[in-house]
Amino acid sequence: MERMYSTQMEAARRGIITPEMKAVAAKERIDEEKLRALISEGKAVIPANPLHRSLDPNGIGRDLWTKINVNLGVSRDCKDYDIEMQKVMSAVDLGAEAIMDLSSHGNTQPFRQKLCRECPAMIGTVPVYDAVIHYQRDLGTLTARDLIDVVRLHAEDGVDFVTLHCGLTRKTIDQIRSGQRKMNLVSRGGSLIFAWMSMTGEENPFYEYFDEILDICREHDVTISLGDACRPGCLADATDGVQIEELIRLGELTERAWKKDVQVMIEGPGHVPMDQIAANMKVEETICHGAPFYVLGPLVTDIAPGYDHITAAIGGAIAAYNGASFLCYVTPAEHLALPDVDDVHEGIIASKIAAHAADIAKHLPGAREQDDLMAEARRKLDWEEQFRHAMDPERAKAVRDARLPEDDHSDTCSMCGKFCAVRSINKALAGETIDIL
Amino acid sequence: MERMYSTQMEAARRGIITPEMKAVAAKERIDEEKLRALISEGKAVIPANPLHRSLDPNGIGRDLWTKINVNLGVSRDCKDYDIEMQKVMSAVDLGAEAIMDLSSHGNTQPFRQKLCRECPAMIGTVPVYDAVIHYQRDLGTLTARDLIDVVRLHAEDGVDFVTLHCGLTRKTIDQIRSGQRKMNLVSRGGSLIFAWMSMTGEENPFYEYFDEILDICREHDVTISLGDACRPGCLADATDGVQIEELIRLGELTERAWKKDVQVMIEGPGHVPMDQIAANMKVEETICHGAPFYVLGPLVTDIAPGYDHITAAIGGAIAAYNGASFLCYVTPAEHLALPDVDDVHEGIIASKIAAHAADIAKHLPGAREQDDLMAEARRKLDWEEQFRHAMDPERAKAVRDARLPEDDHSDTCSMCGKFCAVRSINKALAGETIDIL
Repeated sequence: MERMYSTQMEAARRGIITPEMKAVAAKERIDEEKLRALISEGKAVIPANPLHRSLDPNGIGRDLWTKINVNLGVSRDCKDYDIEMQKVMSAVDLGAEAIMDLSSHGNTQPFRQKLCRECPAMIGTVPVYDAVIHYQRDLGTLTARDLIDVVRLHAEDGVDFVTLHCGLTRKTIDQIRSGQRKMNLVSRGGSLIFAWMSMTGEENPFYEYFDEILDICREHDVTISLGDACRPGCLADATDGVQIEELIRLGELTERAWKKDVQVMIEGPGHVPMDQIAANMKVEETICHGAPFYVLGPLVTDIAPGYDHITAAIGGAIAAYNGASFLCYVTPAEHLALPDVDDVHEGIIASKIAAHAADIAKHLPGAREQDDLMAEARRKLDWEEQFRHAMDPERAKAVRDARLPEDDHSDTCSMCGKFCAVRSINKALAGETIDIL
Repeated sequence: MERMYSTQMEAARRGIITPEMKAVAAKERIDEEKLRALISEGKAVIPANPLHRSLDPNGIGRDLWTKINVNLGVSRDCKDYDIEMQKVMSAVDLGAEAIMDLSSHGNTQPFRQKLCRECPAMIGTVPVYDAVIHYQRDLGTLTARDLIDVVRLHAEDGVDFVTLHCGLTRKTIDQIRSGQRKMNLVSRGGSLIFAWMSMTGEENPFYEYFDEILDICREHDVTISLGDACRPGCLADATDGVQIEELIRLGELTERAWKKDVQVMIEGPGHVPMDQIAANMKVEETICHGAPFYVLGPLVTDIAPGYDHITAAIGGAIAAYNGASFLCYVTPAEHLALPDVDDVHEGIIASKIAAHAADIAKHLPGAREQDDLMAEARRKLDWEEQFRHAMDPERAKAVRDARLPEDDHSDTCSMCGKFCAVRSINKALAGETIDIL
């Protein structure tokens, strides 16, 4: 299966509509030619490493449906591969378009390879997390070469996109040391590079050897997700100079990647007050030339640990409506613990709600179809039909069934019972008497 | 305790700063004179029936902190007074500023009177729900007089605000019968009036006898919450002519109420796509002359039954940021069943998050204080301090404690373990070596 092009972007620029573009255009109900144009300009990406043969491709971009990512992976505190693979497959069933494998324990390669063999969602990784584990040597002993080699390893394993914190430079270290920020850096990958740079005195290898990284990514059509090492970790640090200066670096790197036909996404905040979210989306669009924005939250308050899937759903919906293309899920365990199976479930649904609400507001083709069918089912008080159109049919059915109305009015629910507005109006319109007592 | 004025609005207009205004201004950290001016113009209300002696008063208005309401009350499917009173007190502990007693079963008066005797939150009711129960006669047999008399009864029991669906008229019946809407009416109170009007052929008594209602509300300083009988019950019906025509009626009635110094809030949607929320807030402000907007949601998608506390948190946060002053909580059981204790808890926290996120974005005095303290605690990895500033300390502690990191790093949590970004940066800034393996 020899391809006549390296990356989706190269194909798009040469006027080729790839099988992946065809599949994505059909799902999105947009014109293939329009999608090709977006990809050629970098305004949409299809992360699709040809070695990831089980992939059901998806596109990411402002003009496409908002996609969601689920972070999973084996760790010291959750090392069972089978449990983790179960979480992956149930995340895909719930509608996750991407899985980021953040494994940080044991031999990470077999799990990564298994994902690329079996998982239909796009797979992303953060190679710097894996470096320490892969070499089994602590951070300070690794060389720039070691770090770059892990990127190649992941590309060869079939990963579709890699997060690389290329915009962090020695200048950032000065900014952080000067104490401008309340929370310094909260990016895991960014903090590792910061620590490595502090220990070695060297420049960030992902910045310094960016051309070599581009060659790897071009060869394997790996999309670069330019990591936001400087994303704000609290409201007080949002949209500050440290964050925006890194974004400017990412914009410059985006242009360099595009020169080599490498697909790029930009990662974004973080913790951001609601009134700054639209501005963040606009600034990313201008500074990064329309490259798709992949946001982690944004969380709109810092004081809701245990409920950060909700703070992220609020921020994510506003971000997606204002231009973010890709939402990283946040679970109720964020800031507190590793998510368990229930947390993962809650986090995915909250992200899907945010993405869907934004897609409706953006008037994307067909985005409101299920909602309209739900409304019809509600007017008819047809409960089976309501469950069918629900984002989580099992949950909806379980809540209703656990507390059915005592009166056995199969047309109503126990929330309003005979006071049900839909029932009253239906009866009134049919000329029937309303019995409430 | 003879008052020299009937209502807070009358006092404000006569230049009197009441004890309630003093208390509210202190809480809100705003100037008493500024608050008095807002109340005199109708831009803020303090629902405070002098007979509600246990009240800890709160103000509602665009320039004040966003408040939340919790619907409770005994019903056929949940008739235990003590359980319901427990829910009330725990709602107040969680930060609910208002409780609406929607009791619809048994003898409702003792519970309502108990609330007004014991509950420090403002108490609201929907008299039309209570009418059938109070008279123990079915809807079609009640007279306009009966309905008005229930309003007086509630006022005399000490209720601070009443929802009255005064804007529904016979014109609305024609609009609904013409089939313009997918979901017709979904307001419980509105549907009862619609049904009553259909059965009796009469005009809406709350519209027809509005002056008499104003006299009752003036006498007892009961704030009228002008109900939105025509709020959209699905995205497809949002911001349509039926909804906005009712809003115009409510704007006219607001002016009539203000002429008699009666305080007014306006109730609003409902199910609304994200892109229409800001417009709804603006239109309410102009048509209803700045009267505080009390929104029920808005829910930004119809397909998430089981998670409507999240769809409402997204819509509520956007609404509050754009001008809504008061959010009615929505629980995960919405559309499905009566909320149980857990649902009430989840619903309240979700509403508090929405309200708080909006207050931060509106830059209200002190709104971000807890968030900044949380950020400090996070940087120091001081967990006890983090729990102290959390909206729900018990939940946060329980999540962390249930899954502590295996390595016993008391400084981190099991989410990242030794990969904790905060730990890495703190060590790097202290010049320490980072151990990860």
